[in-house]
Amino acid sequence: MEMRRVQIMGVGKYLPRSVVTAEEIDEKLGTRKGWVAKKAGVLTRHFADGETASQMGAAAAREALTKAGLSLSDIDCIVCASGTMEQAIPCTASLIYSELDPTHTGIPAFDINSTCLSFVTAFDHLSYLITAGRYRQILIVSTEIASVGLDWTQKESSALFGDGAAAVVLGPTPQGEKSAILSSRMETYSQGAHLSEIRGGGTKHHPRKYGAELDMSDFLFDMDGEAIFRLSARYLPEFIKRLLSKDAIGTPRLSLNEVDLVIPHQASMMAMRLMQRRLGISKKQMFIFAQNHGNTIASSIPIGIYEAIEQGQIQRGDTVMLLGTSAGLSLGGLVFVY
Amino acid sequence: MEMRRVQIMGVGKYLPRSVVTAEEIDEKLGTRKGWVAKKAGVLTRHFADGETASQMGAAAAREALTKAGLSLSDIDCIVCASGTMEQAIPCTASLIYSELDPTHTGIPAFDINSTCLSFVTAFDHLSYLITAGRYRQILIVSTEIASVGLDWTQKESSALFGDGAAAVVLGPTPQGEKSAILSSRMETYSQGAHLSEIRGGGTKHHPRKYGAELDMSDFLFDMDGEAIFRLSARYLPEFIKRLLSKDAIGTPRLSLNEVDLVIPHQASMMAMRLMQRRLGISKKQMFIFAQNHGNTIASSIPIGIYEAIEQGQIQRGDTVMLLGTSAGLSLGGLVFVY
Repeated sequence: MEMRRVQIMGVGKYLPRSVVTAEEIDEKLGTRKGWVAKKAGVLTRHFADGETASQMGAAAAREALTKAGLSLSDIDCIVCASGTMEQAIPCTASLIYSELDPTHTGIPAFDINSTCLSFVTAFDHLSYLITAGRYRQILIVSTEIASVGLDWTQKESSALFGDGAAAVVLGPTPQGEKSAILSSRMETYSQGAHLSEIRGGGTKHHPRKYGAELDMSDFLFDMDGEAIFRLSARYLPEFIKRLLSKDAIGTPRLSLNEVDLVIPHQASMMAMRLMQRRLGISKKQMFIFAQNHGNTIASSIPIGIYEAIEQGQIQRGDTVMLLGTSAGLSLGGLVFVY
Repeated sequence: MEMRRVQIMGVGKYLPRSVVTAEEIDEKLGTRKGWVAKKAGVLTRHFADGETASQMGAAAAREALTKAGLSLSDIDCIVCASGTMEQAIPCTASLIYSELDPTHTGIPAFDINSTCLSFVTAFDHLSYLITAGRYRQILIVSTEIASVGLDWTQKESSALFGDGAAAVVLGPTPQGEKSAILSSRMETYSQGAHLSEIRGGGTKHHPRKYGAELDMSDFLFDMDGEAIFRLSARYLPEFIKRLLSKDAIGTPRLSLNEVDLVIPHQASMMAMRLMQRRLGISKKQMFIFAQNHGNTIASSIPIGIYEAIEQGQIQRGDTVMLLGTSAGLSLGGLVFVY
């Protein structure tokens, strides 16, 4: 496979104004003070309070455009890569587009959804349209309001999540620079299709049946964390081998030691520690920022890219690995030179 | 732009068992007998009655695989391209995958959503991954249960819809054959973002607020058909010029006369007649099959491809144009040699 010469030109981030502490979550869950901080490791997170997903996404997009030195008219495609939708219809990308400029015309806008891996899937797949010359600059936005769908009777999972948005402008790599996607891979494992779900809200358990056939829990997040953990752990080592193989990267294969920073989906502290152990990489290589964000679904990984850049953890020319799991169940990874 | 040498290898279709007549819809709407048949032009349609979207999609996928002479293991990527989801989480593609084989592993599965244009968007964007050698065969599935989200107090729009699924296997064009995508284009117009929507069901108006802040109509389809009609009509002629331009196709530009068959999204008889008039094409070039299907959202266009092949309306080597509008508001088109 050929290297894809694409570059992250700018990244933006938006967190809702309202900060929620671990103690406040303890109160909500009825757990003793300190339980959330210890169990989930999330000390603060942000919950949307009036902000819509498209407003959050548009705010992140504006920052990404500014950082890239571009305006909306320089963008050839707007993709919303999120695990949640703002409305059942239309796609969230068109709501973000309208939020950015309610009279602008001509940019194609659509959604890509692979739950928590949506951003990685969009980054991966859309890169081919840049190298083929179809699009020049693409705006990828992940914007998630997890808080509204949490089931507060499920303590373990509810303790993990936060809301937030991030946006990335992707374009062709300028001559003389090294930015490129070296490898990318996604694998779905059918047996995990029902390990994390919100069963309602779609056409199977439509909200119109609420009250009669369905109750509120059908519309809330339900996760078998332990089963996901086991299934991911089982497939992860072989997945990484394939992601870094000679076939994927070209000769010679890439070693994990050559990866400067792994930005994992901030699923949970436990999942990230497992990943680190299974991969046998150093603590320094692993970028963890869940303690003040929580798991923000698909915006987790691009928020990680934003934070890694802002905190000086990655520089142009560094090799970065994005890695995560998603409902489905899927593993996804992407190795790129920033 | 270079031609993309991809080929539709097989197409499958599934319609729910339950057939609903125009008279039955008249009864549901409280309109006089004959109103639906005359106004919407849809004489029969199918409504899911127990079938889930993933079951419908899997049935269509099985037929597409058989027609392509392939098995599931020959597929490198499963994309669900629908305007509705089966569940809020996970993506419908992973539910279809699990329905096809609940123990199969390794095929990436994700959703692409641009409402009624989802199939065209997936066909268009995923084709680049075939020509780049990333994927060999891709399975694109559109599966829609429109009926559950209809607002029966909105007579004009409710009279239009039906349920159904279609699946397409896309692969590289064999040597010596002509199949290719000649041109494709999508444009979104921000000012139309709210002209057709289901406002609820996502994070903005979550089902958990049903009863308190929201009522049932928030979860049902709401369309300003006339405004969509006006906006589409305004942009369509220039859109088609750009779709068929020298830049898009290569020298010389394609003329509409050279298109053997236009398969439009079966939005409504009125919209299709307008399209035909605006494009100045013959009745024979326009493939209309809404009378026994209705508007099946994103599965409408791939059902059209299926029917056109089955009815002998297109042969290998023919030039076909897919064309439609979607909530957002977007126009989308794709010209390919079958």
